[in-house]
Amino acid sequence: MPMLSERTRAADASAQPFLRFYSTSRYADRRFEPGIADFTFGNPQEMPLPGFVAALGAAIEPRDMNWFAYKTSEDEPRAFLAEHVGRELGLDFAPDDFALTAGAFAAIALAFRLVLDAGDEAIFAEPAWFCYEPMLLAADTVPVKVRLRGPRFDLDLAAIAAAITPRTRLVIVNTPHNPTGRIYGRAELEALADVLDRASARIGRRIFLLSDEPYRRLRFDENAFVSPAAVYPWTLVSYSYGKVLLTPGQRLGYLALSPLMPSGERRVIAGATLAAQMALGWNFASAVMQHAIPALEDLSIDLPAFTRRRDRLMGVLAEAGYAPLLPEGTFYLFAGWPPGDPEVHWNRLADHDVFVMPGSVMGAPDHFRISLTASDAMVEKAVPAFLAAGAAPTG
Amino acid sequence: MPMLSERTRAADASAQPFLRFYSTSRYADRRFEPGIADFTFGNPQEMPLPGFVAALGAAIEPRDMNWFAYKTSEDEPRAFLAEHVGRELGLDFAPDDFALTAGAFAAIALAFRLVLDAGDEAIFAEPAWFCYEPMLLAADTVPVKVRLRGPRFDLDLAAIAAAITPRTRLVIVNTPHNPTGRIYGRAELEALADVLDRASARIGRRIFLLSDEPYRRLRFDENAFVSPAAVYPWTLVSYSYGKVLLTPGQRLGYLALSPLMPSGERRVIAGATLAAQMALGWNFASAVMQHAIPALEDLSIDLPAFTRRRDRLMGVLAEAGYAPLLPEGTFYLFAGWPPGDPEVHWNRLADHDVFVMPGSVMGAPDHFRISLTASDAMVEKAVPAFLAAGAAPTG
Repeated sequence: MPMLSERTRAADASAQPFLRFYSTSRYADRRFEPGIADFTFGNPQEMPLPGFVAALGAAIEPRDMNWFAYKTSEDEPRAFLAEHVGRELGLDFAPDDFALTAGAFAAIALAFRLVLDAGDEAIFAEPAWFCYEPMLLAADTVPVKVRLRGPRFDLDLAAIAAAITPRTRLVIVNTPHNPTGRIYGRAELEALADVLDRASARIGRRIFLLSDEPYRRLRFDENAFVSPAAVYPWTLVSYSYGKVLLTPGQRLGYLALSPLMPSGERRVIAGATLAAQMALGWNFASAVMQHAIPALEDLSIDLPAFTRRRDRLMGVLAEAGYAPLLPEGTFYLFAGWPPGDPEVHWNRLADHDVFVMPGSVMGAPDHFRISLTASDAMVEKAVPAFLAAGAAPTG
Repeated sequence: MPMLSERTRAADASAQPFLRFYSTSRYADRRFEPGIADFTFGNPQEMPLPGFVAALGAAIEPRDMNWFAYKTSEDEPRAFLAEHVGRELGLDFAPDDFALTAGAFAAIALAFRLVLDAGDEAIFAEPAWFCYEPMLLAADTVPVKVRLRGPRFDLDLAAIAAAITPRTRLVIVNTPHNPTGRIYGRAELEALADVLDRASARIGRRIFLLSDEPYRRLRFDENAFVSPAAVYPWTLVSYSYGKVLLTPGQRLGYLALSPLMPSGERRVIAGATLAAQMALGWNFASAVMQHAIPALEDLSIDLPAFTRRRDRLMGVLAEAGYAPLLPEGTFYLFAGWPPGDPEVHWNRLADHDVFVMPGSVMGAPDHFRISLTASDAMVEKAVPAFLAAGAAPTG
């Protein structure tokens, strides 16, 4: 008789590729060694931003007896976000459109809980972040995967339209996109909205869009960004501060409702959000992080340094026979392996103490992902390794 | 066509009594007024512990580049807890028995996710904390409520045994108990374990016990505490730092597996916990709170002050014609209304600016709960109000 719930077993099985990579791979054995070049997860490889520590220092000083009391989505940060995110995205948000969450994971789990019932289907496109699928399985829902359209990994609208069934309730769009670094343009999003509108009418229920945009402020070359929330009214936006601040351990994010959503529906969803967050495990952002929000607004990791690393590696990877795709946003660089066995290629880099994220954990085994959160020293260490490892055939 | 998932609507409906009390009651209208005596939620009515602020101050200073990186259940706090909680409960914990969570809510949600599938039944006894039911409903499971046995609200083992069906997968025990302040003794827990053992054998699947013990360190009169984890091997323990520190906004807790659990089963559950926490929305405790754990170990709210308030109010309530139950633990005091309409009694106290938690939100409409987190000044303000409001009949 199994001890675990079926849904946890399903989530665990789905997460195994990246969990095994994290905990039992050659990378896992060596990830804390000082000499390695770590391009795997989006974790910091340098000391935190001093401004972040200063913001926390101010936020931990209690100014009233409620400072560390139970927090839901507090009025002040909600009003602040309505104004600032509204300006950023060109949308007329109300404070109630924002649910403060313990990171984007919590915002995504909240979105799933708000609109999905057991057996409902959610569509997303691969290559993809490795957690959508286990999160959907743990919520008793059905992940439906389509492919992005190569070579530049555009949205495949025909594939999305074909995947919609009467049980479809949600489509997930991640822009800027992890792992490819693509940013979807307005025309592409409008075409998607059109697909979802027509499909919603056909199946007789509204298909929601989850716009997962934690990398929204991390864009290269002054690329523009259009939130799907500005294009499709039934959009929920998940956001994390963990990327732009590179502090994923501090868990601050939000779920926002598009202010274009019809007011009745918007009110119903906003009205159930507090209960949904409570019932998911009180996944509100902590008191300290909510207090810190205004001080965090203008902080960011050093984007010019990320651009420098991107450009350096783009040149080297192309020279070495990999097939890199120029990222428009995120802090990732996605590249194809040279011909041959991807595992051999990955191990060859590991032999040089260079660790990248194998695309196999993101539904793209013939690619790999480089996190530009690596330090400049790691990049320079990796350059000769890429040049040496990429050149030779694998077998 | 409804916008919300059925499970969120069910959770929201179940939470309405306390949400309405929190957001649209006479209490909601006035809860931030300085003159009121607030005995409702377990929130601080005095400034935070200076030691807590000092612990955060040390924990936000980064000592390495991973300081704010993604955290799961980190090795150092796990080892610390295995040693210290092991000593406290007399149990031989291993570090892997602890899952660090963003508060006890998250630990409870994790326990539900680990062992319950959609349609599974979980039993708990009323009066009860008002969140078990919406949390179970949001998880697509079936809350099965029995009553505690008056007048002292003992566990009703016959009622629990009678409520067990082939779908029963979990029994929740909350000790020290919110709202009654009872602590269940070893003999009572052993009798419960016997019921669960026999029922598990009968239905052919193991019934787990969730011991929700966030008030474990808050005990009056040097009362002893026995964790159900020391009595029934298939016990999961949820714990929060938010009670003993009175900082519920900072979200620190854990789920612990009883080390008495057979090693194979214990390993299976521990092995799936990381994926389950990820899939629930990365509900690990934040980096700062995990760093702070050793510094928080010996901190506590001022228990003698709570004892003083308890004793003062016990005398007054009895004198005024209420029927108070001497709490053995927690920071609550549970009392019966005098004869008559509870709502009239509640409003009569509110007319005196005294706000208590109506028992109707906890499945006990003929009782009310007082939170001893109120300040001494609030207690003294309330004394004449209780004496004036309690005496007269209601209609």
